[in-house]
Amino acid sequence: MPATLDVLRQPQAQPTARVIRLAIAGCGVVGSELVRLLAQQSALIQQQHGVSFEVTRVLVRDTTKQRGAETPPGLITSDLASFLATPADVVIEAIGGLQPALSIAQAAVRRGARFITANKALIAEHGVELLGAARASQSRIQFEAAVGASVPVVRVLREALGTARPAAIRGILNGTANFVLTLLEQGVPLADAVTRAQQRGLAEADPGRDLDGRDVEDKISILAWLAHGVQRQQLRPNRSGLLPDIERLSKDAHAVDARLRLIAECISEPAGVYVNIEPVIVSADSAFGQTTYENNLITLDFGWKAPIQLSGPGAGGLPTASALLGDLLDAGPRLSIPALPPQCISDPRPHRWSVSVKRNERAALGRAHALDIPARIVQLRQGALCFHTTPVTRTRLAGLLAELKVIGAQPAAVRLDLGKTAS
Amino acid sequence: MPATLDVLRQPQAQPTARVIRLAIAGCGVVGSELVRLLAQQSALIQQQHGVSFEVTRVLVRDTTKQRGAETPPGLITSDLASFLATPADVVIEAIGGLQPALSIAQAAVRRGARFITANKALIAEHGVELLGAARASQSRIQFEAAVGASVPVVRVLREALGTARPAAIRGILNGTANFVLTLLEQGVPLADAVTRAQQRGLAEADPGRDLDGRDVEDKISILAWLAHGVQRQQLRPNRSGLLPDIERLSKDAHAVDARLRLIAECISEPAGVYVNIEPVIVSADSAFGQTTYENNLITLDFGWKAPIQLSGPGAGGLPTASALLGDLLDAGPRLSIPALPPQCISDPRPHRWSVSVKRNERAALGRAHALDIPARIVQLRQGALCFHTTPVTRTRLAGLLAELKVIGAQPAAVRLDLGKTAS
Repeated sequence: MPATLDVLRQPQAQPTARVIRLAIAGCGVVGSELVRLLAQQSALIQQQHGVSFEVTRVLVRDTTKQRGAETPPGLITSDLASFLATPADVVIEAIGGLQPALSIAQAAVRRGARFITANKALIAEHGVELLGAARASQSRIQFEAAVGASVPVVRVLREALGTARPAAIRGILNGTANFVLTLLEQGVPLADAVTRAQQRGLAEADPGRDLDGRDVEDKISILAWLAHGVQRQQLRPNRSGLLPDIERLSKDAHAVDARLRLIAECISEPAGVYVNIEPVIVSADSAFGQTTYENNLITLDFGWKAPIQLSGPGAGGLPTASALLGDLLDAGPRLSIPALPPQCISDPRPHRWSVSVKRNERAALGRAHALDIPARIVQLRQGALCFHTTPVTRTRLAGLLAELKVIGAQPAAVRLDLGKTAS
Repeated sequence: MPATLDVLRQPQAQPTARVIRLAIAGCGVVGSELVRLLAQQSALIQQQHGVSFEVTRVLVRDTTKQRGAETPPGLITSDLASFLATPADVVIEAIGGLQPALSIAQAAVRRGARFITANKALIAEHGVELLGAARASQSRIQFEAAVGASVPVVRVLREALGTARPAAIRGILNGTANFVLTLLEQGVPLADAVTRAQQRGLAEADPGRDLDGRDVEDKISILAWLAHGVQRQQLRPNRSGLLPDIERLSKDAHAVDARLRLIAECISEPAGVYVNIEPVIVSADSAFGQTTYENNLITLDFGWKAPIQLSGPGAGGLPTASALLGDLLDAGPRLSIPALPPQCISDPRPHRWSVSVKRNERAALGRAHALDIPARIVQLRQGALCFHTTPVTRTRLAGLLAELKVIGAQPAAVRLDLGKTAS
């Protein structure tokens, strides 16, 4: 073996690895994968990183449930006070929801423990507060797994490209909604598609937060905070989810050989920053159109010749647990958020829209022309009409939709972007 | 302003930022962008990261050349000894090539300075030695910009996903070759395409290393080292570049409405690891087929439901300088390479191949059938023939090509992968 190799191997064969104590809250799909990974990879972690992880406590809802062999029953508790009292250098939270996740996070950072989470609602709502508390106690918070699961967007925004700030962040950020949309394209009825997402371990018992865009709003708010320092309270995002017209909108996309996607975007212009979360009809061969099932795709546009694109599984036990383990092994610098956040504004751009009506087609077209919104008919089906507009602002579209409701046309509108990349 | 915001802003308004001294080797397309970024963003960097960078020396080839206002003439030198003697906490190298880059790197890490580089040849050839020296002096080496420019693949392999090791890494890793291939698809002759790549600042005066796959070999070797700990000397990659048959192969791809791409892959199987660098015909709507001009695309397959995909500009001054600045601002942990690298083997898989011959078509088909390699004719043009084979190993293909040469058929073969994702 050459001499250089000997040199290299020495630090990896440390006999006295530093022991890091972990308390893990949640042992469901993600938490149990993490516990399994930690057990399976312990020799490798010790060799390569010179540390050894010792799980000191695992918080679960139901202590009687059968767990894998890697979770010694003595460590398991359902008592929050007992969990919080257990000494730990790092607290990992994989429960989801705001409580008791927030209490766990607050207790951890106040006593100086690192806090690692996959919980987007928690970070979107309380990230600013938790970061402030972590700074005060010289501790850290990490949440790579909270957006895009294994897609490393938090890390890239945080540190990969120096001071470069994206003029546009765009993404498919909800695996469940995208899975349902993919199945609708294959002709599966909505109820069946949702059931299959649930069977696959994607959707919650209530998939409402996935389909109405609230989950996506949490995630894009986190990205806007990382990229621009904008706090959620200032953002006032424009959000329209997939409900109630998801099947109709999907058909309107199909009518032009395109795809319906739930897209979040955070755009930075000289006048300010704004966030939209809404369904968009995109071309089938665009990067968004080609993102299927539970995959996520995020594009970061820095004004270079092409955007940086990141994609991969946006859900799943092993990808999410791997992102948590990545945070755990990353002893990097503390998070720093851009100072002096910009103004928050409303989307000033005109967009093209696909509008469909269920009744009074002729009158509907007449209203569009009366409002000086040129419309091109793309489908007449069973008495229903779908037309595309030229680019108009949201305000003008809202005016048209209000009139179409008044005349009983039962309109549904969706943004239209048939370029190679959504913009 | 709410109280939490006040708390947050305190650490960002440190009046006494730590000064970090930088010596920069190279002030060409990348180096000059970095100098400009450092000057332009200094207030932001100080606010957000609490550090202030002071450039102490800039090494250039020609001191008489006009530089931007951000490079004070007093700092510029063309004298290597004087550059090496200048005190610096961090040395950034953006010259390219092995010398004097290697001397600069060795001098930096030996005296404990951090060394940051965009130089793939240097890291591919000397990464192991430099990492050993950096460890001995408690220093660090960083090279995010060496692979994929702004595409954050080094960071993702290094730390984002814990101990997860990719079963397959695949990538379009050379912007110049991909730019030329994209122009060939548009009917531009080869010589013009190369000239336009040079005019765009992509190709060197000698674009040979880009087109014959040596540049890609450097990059995939670095990724194989990061992912598996395999050293370049052990790898023995299978490399066939685009020369001399690039135009013919591009036409063979066009004949089946597909695209020619120069693809590198590092595959890990239980028997060992192997690396291929070769042209592949991919379907036009695959992620590789849709990667055009100087963009790079890297897919990391961890055996999850979908691979992680990273893409973006693979060249250019600002994207590369941004990646260097990302490394500079990343005070993260020292690089750790997997211990106990696997065996290196040769690709054992059968692949489909597109084979074209210029003469003796009938005899060529006869040889294929005699060797029990079923072939489907896809194009007969001007006396030439292009056929696709069923999956056969490289050894069997080599046997066929040898026979076709003997009978004077002047064959050219290229791997064929018309699935949605190359595999």
